[in-house]
Amino acid sequence: MNPLTSTNPYFAGLFADDEITDLFSGPATAEAFLAHEVALTRAAAEVGQIEADLAARAVAAMVGFAPDVVALQADLKTDGMAVPGYVRQLKAHVGAELAPAIHPGATSQDLIDTALMLAIRAANAIYLSRLEALNNALEELGRTQGENALMARTRMQAALPITAGHRITTWAAPVERHTNRLEVLRPEVELLQFGGPVGDRQRSQPHGDAMARFMAAELGLSAPVRSWHTERDGLATYASWLSALTGSLGKIGQDICLMAQQGVDALAQQGGGSSSAMAHKQNPVTAELLVTLARYNAGQLPLMHQAMVHEQERSGAMWTLEWMVLPAMMTCTGAALRLATEQIQAITRIGEPPSPS
Amino acid sequence: MNPLTSTNPYFAGLFADDEITDLFSGPATAEAFLAHEVALTRAAAEVGQIEADLAARAVAAMVGFAPDVVALQADLKTDGMAVPGYVRQLKAHVGAELAPAIHPGATSQDLIDTALMLAIRAANAIYLSRLEALNNALEELGRTQGENALMARTRMQAALPITAGHRITTWAAPVERHTNRLEVLRPEVELLQFGGPVGDRQRSQPHGDAMARFMAAELGLSAPVRSWHTERDGLATYASWLSALTGSLGKIGQDICLMAQQGVDALAQQGGGSSSAMAHKQNPVTAELLVTLARYNAGQLPLMHQAMVHEQERSGAMWTLEWMVLPAMMTCTGAALRLATEQIQAITRIGEPPSPS
Amino acid sequence: MNPLTSTNPYFAGLFADDEITDLFSGPATAEAFLAHEVALTRAAAEVGQIEADLAARAVAAMVGFAPDVVALQADLKTDGMAVPGYVRQLKAHVGAELAPAIHPGATSQDLIDTALMLAIRAANAIYLSRLEALNNALEELGRTQGENALMARTRMQAALPITAGHRITTWAAPVERHTNRLEVLRPEVELLQFGGPVGDRQRSQPHGDAMARFMAAELGLSAPVRSWHTERDGLATYASWLSALTGSLGKIGQDICLMAQQGVDALAQQGGGSSSAMAHKQNPVTAELLVTLARYNAGQLPLMHQAMVHEQERSGAMWTLEWMVLPAMMTCTGAALRLATEQIQAITRIGEPPSPS
Amino acid sequence: MNPLTSTNPYFAGLFADDEITDLFSGPATAEAFLAHEVALTRAAAEVGQIEADLAARAVAAMVGFAPDVVALQADLKTDGMAVPGYVRQLKAHVGAELAPAIHPGATSQDLIDTALMLAIRAANAIYLSRLEALNNALEELGRTQGENALMARTRMQAALPITAGHRITTWAAPVERHTNRLEVLRPEVELLQFGGPVGDRQRSQPHGDAMARFMAAELGLSAPVRSWHTERDGLATYASWLSALTGSLGKIGQDICLMAQQGVDALAQQGGGSSSAMAHKQNPVTAELLVTLARYNAGQLPLMHQAMVHEQERSGAMWTLEWMVLPAMMTCTGAALRLATEQIQAITRIGEPPSPS
Repeated sequence: MNPLTSTNPYFAGLFADDEITDLFSGPATAEAFLAHEVALTRAAAEVGQIEADLAARAVAAMVGFAPDVVALQADLKTDGMAVPGYVRQLKAHVGAELAPAIHPGATSQDLIDTALMLAIRAANAIYLSRLEALNNALEELGRTQGENALMARTRMQAALPITAGHRITTWAAPVERHTNRLEVLRPEVELLQFGGPVGDRQRSQPHGDAMARFMAAELGLSAPVRSWHTERDGLATYASWLSALTGSLGKIGQDICLMAQQGVDALAQQGGGSSSAMAHKQNPVTAELLVTLARYNAGQLPLMHQAMVHEQERSGAMWTLEWMVLPAMMTCTGAALRLATEQIQAITRIGEPPSPS
Repeated sequence: MNPLTSTNPYFAGLFADDEITDLFSGPATAEAFLAHEVALTRAAAEVGQIEADLAARAVAAMVGFAPDVVALQADLKTDGMAVPGYVRQLKAHVGAELAPAIHPGATSQDLIDTALMLAIRAANAIYLSRLEALNNALEELGRTQGENALMARTRMQAALPITAGHRITTWAAPVERHTNRLEVLRPEVELLQFGGPVGDRQRSQPHGDAMARFMAAELGLSAPVRSWHTERDGLATYASWLSALTGSLGKIGQDICLMAQQGVDALAQQGGGSSSAMAHKQNPVTAELLVTLARYNAGQLPLMHQAMVHEQERSGAMWTLEWMVLPAMMTCTGAALRLATEQIQAITRIGEPPSPS
Repeated sequence: MNPLTSTNPYFAGLFADDEITDLFSGPATAEAFLAHEVALTRAAAEVGQIEADLAARAVAAMVGFAPDVVALQADLKTDGMAVPGYVRQLKAHVGAELAPAIHPGATSQDLIDTALMLAIRAANAIYLSRLEALNNALEELGRTQGENALMARTRMQAALPITAGHRITTWAAPVERHTNRLEVLRPEVELLQFGGPVGDRQRSQPHGDAMARFMAAELGLSAPVRSWHTERDGLATYASWLSALTGSLGKIGQDICLMAQQGVDALAQQGGGSSSAMAHKQNPVTAELLVTLARYNAGQLPLMHQAMVHEQERSGAMWTLEWMVLPAMMTCTGAALRLATEQIQAITRIGEPPSPS
Repeated sequence: MNPLTSTNPYFAGLFADDEITDLFSGPATAEAFLAHEVALTRAAAEVGQIEADLAARAVAAMVGFAPDVVALQADLKTDGMAVPGYVRQLKAHVGAELAPAIHPGATSQDLIDTALMLAIRAANAIYLSRLEALNNALEELGRTQGENALMARTRMQAALPITAGHRITTWAAPVERHTNRLEVLRPEVELLQFGGPVGDRQRSQPHGDAMARFMAAELGLSAPVRSWHTERDGLATYASWLSALTGSLGKIGQDICLMAQQGVDALAQQGGGSSSAMAHKQNPVTAELLVTLARYNAGQLPLMHQAMVHEQERSGAMWTLEWMVLPAMMTCTGAALRLATEQIQAITRIGEPPSPS
């Protein structure tokens, strides 16, 4: 949503995560829509709703379809979604004879939700790889610095000596748990959407469920028993995971900001930001960003839960709200994971400073 | 927090849930603190840190201890927690000889977090029982009304005919999933807290882990490998579950409000609120409350995630924030579950009204 | 809402503010409802809608009316509001002859919103008095400590020397602005509600506006041109003020927590909390609470703004949400103001510590 | 922040507001930074801190400066802000002799906050113009449709007949109040930032205040008595205004969605979105978006209030959070105002439908 942080070069780099952002780009959406439509046409043929030959020719005709984006944007404003315009263009592209093989029994939400799920699946793979990198960095930090003495602080006050390893463990353990939670969560959120206009697959019956299984397999997603058009609990749970993860990373960032204070001096690191006015300063920029991203994601989370109050068979208002919130949360989660590993790797000392001799 | 909704008779009954509220009452806290202290003394004896006889006498002396609540409240304001004053009183109660057997190696957070976990365990049992009741009510509704014709509404507009059963299924499926999620979540949040002053069990070593396992078994909680003083991801995940559940119930409530509109008339029910000014009106009070509670819990959720940015070995500010937020969310969840079942059971017709003949 | 923080003696004192809480007690509501009904009956007589003698007798009969609270609570659950039951009882209390002089042209929302406004008016007086005390304490601190040297910290890093007075000024200036903003805001939120069943005063016309002016004068509130049943922008703006004020106080608290760290040592204070495990520690409990209350109020604020999406002539769901949120915010604001002054007065040194000699 | 809604053509148009977005573009930031630096150099000359001739030559040399954006982005990641790199480039651009006349006594926050204020000033002018258009559209609607009969709905239930004009007035009155509030608020948020490294203008004394007044006049902003680096109450109050405004527009949107339901039929309009599956449907897309934008802004608001807990002389984490949140809120506010007017103008009938004859 935020123009500052997406394209303005004076700000954009701070929170950017190109790998995640690319999953939500126009080309990624185009690819996902087409993959859905191809899988749908093939599924309809598989169950005998469309003649095999017609379907094969329609699939062939769909290959490489690139919609007229300008026309699409005009339709978007009128329809509140890009899909009606997209499907009209796709049908026109394949021509009147093949058009009946396009979009059989489906609805806009089937495409848009499935495209989201494909983005989530790809993001999850990235997250898992970054979680592993972060786990490794924390383990390495524990191995090299864990024996150092550190003054524990409770309520910001010096309490009792601990080892640096104790604090590092409190950073690492949640990261491990979040990794495990994501593994459990994946089947719930990497899920085909297929329900048709009002979610009951009525236009595809009695073959709707078989079509859904076929499409899910084609697209590499889980096959839900029924559509989940209005059941947004999976997405809300996923958003909670995103925010809980960045919350744990924010705790690491906040600790590092506090440890890097002069007078506390419980941590040294490479790099650090400069000041336009004070050349001597080293600012804990990366650690701060972890706090920023944690607070941001926590702030977005309730909107994904407010959006669960989803009226009847489709809520335009609440579904749309998800589009404003979830991709931003996913991008911030990607950025936070990347920054967290950079931050941990930048630490050169954790624990009390060497006494002057 | 809210004076209107806790004791003011003009408002209190709306959102009240006495069963859940009682879990957070003074007597419940007293009972939990004492259970923790007894388990701790027994654990210390079990591992040989305290003489068995001394421990047994201390445990006996602790029985029935009731703190001076007035003195406690004075200490509370000074210390920011009731535990230091409580432990002082408990030690005075058992006398100087037995005092060394009290609170060995523990810290305030061990008591308060463990007491919270005991409340959560009890609440979870209540939730599961109410989830079952709600599941049953929804199943019954599906059985008796599921075949009725209903006009599906997408974006609030009449779309295509469906069965009432289709919509009921979209209400029931999330309830089932939330039930399953809670079963998975329980071990993560019904968890002993035992870490000592700075979370590393240092004053109980080398027996800290054995003590924790013993205490957990005594108290009917899971035994964590280490303390989780600053690792609030389990609580944040639990709060997310609460909010996702009430979100799904809020969707049911919103649908019912919409279906009960004159002109739509897709639902009839018993009861309904009256108006001080319009005797003819029947207000969908229970359904509205489901929306209210969903929005309330969604609104509280980010605070449990903001509170994850928990400084160093203990954050006074963020830990305290949890006390303001989580019991309220738990109470609202209890109320929403109860009201949802009442609401479903009050439905006498779902589906298009009988045509006049 | 929160059972822990309202009646549980192990927690209640931390965030309590009895002066504000009392404004939302059952007796306060009873008094406000009766004041509204008396003013309404008198207003109806004033404009000639009710005979003067009947009105006078009804007013006399209302004096000292105390509703049956048990019956009220039963009605509350059915009606979703206490007013219908209250009015039934009040009419029964005055008897059939005088009943027509009771509640003429009014609706539940007129009573409940007006009662809220009376509570807000009383709270504002308390806030202004506490703001003055806080202003004075900050001024006194500036006078006694302002010349001290202090190391400025930007991004938590030591930057350049400033005076303690500079930082104190950055604490005090927002407090002054919030005071001025409240003065401006008062007429917008100390506002009679009078609209009748659907907000257009139709049952009181052509005298509705005159009645409203009379009632407002009686009750010491501003007289709105029309009812504002569904126009919640005044309340949302007021809630924003509450949260912005506690946000500014939270900044003071956070600074003090950071300044009180060993190693930083830029502040000394009297008091401070003890630890159940570490006798040597002095915890900045009051300063932490200012952070807690700031984050809590910020977290509640969006609910008052979500509640602005208030359907048609009355939203049961969104109006009810306000009852759960606003009194809690107002209580926390009262507590934060009180604690802030205590905290400022407890400071014995602000600025770099005296060098050892 | 959100890639979907900023550049993806399948979604971007829905919430877009190019006029507001442009205020936060790279070129707009470049222009604002340069305007600040020019005003600063001229101010320093005005008070005699820099020789007039040197300043004049520096100002001349600055004209048309365009930074190397690639280098800037590299510095951005290291420094956490673009300003240090920008100032280095600007000094290099003017050359070693004139460099001392550049950025005298200023800090990164002076540039970034001032640039934000310039964007806010420009946005406010746009908002006021759109508020006027909306006011006019509502007035026109009241004039043409206000006499129509409409069934009032309270708690979504039919209550009593009102006029369409009554409901239109409840839409229009808050819009007028928000307009007035913005007029009052402008001087508080169209405010120069000038404080130097630690906010006390120490490097510019004794001329700091005079310089600030000169710069403010140059830039068309208000001159604050002191810098407000850490006093974010003005911005929080402004964000509250944004959210309260979109909240009021969301209420209009929600009403229209409800009125447009078949069976209720209290409103007819031109346009409306199509469906990919149901050709007969007319979706209230614009009205839905008003609800979406209201909920979105309400959800962002607490982050601007959480960000008030701004540590010491500068909080990297909390200041950065504002950059993620406020431009998004401002864009959504612009979009909501534009859409609201379109929506009101699209209404062809408000009130009960003509009876079939």
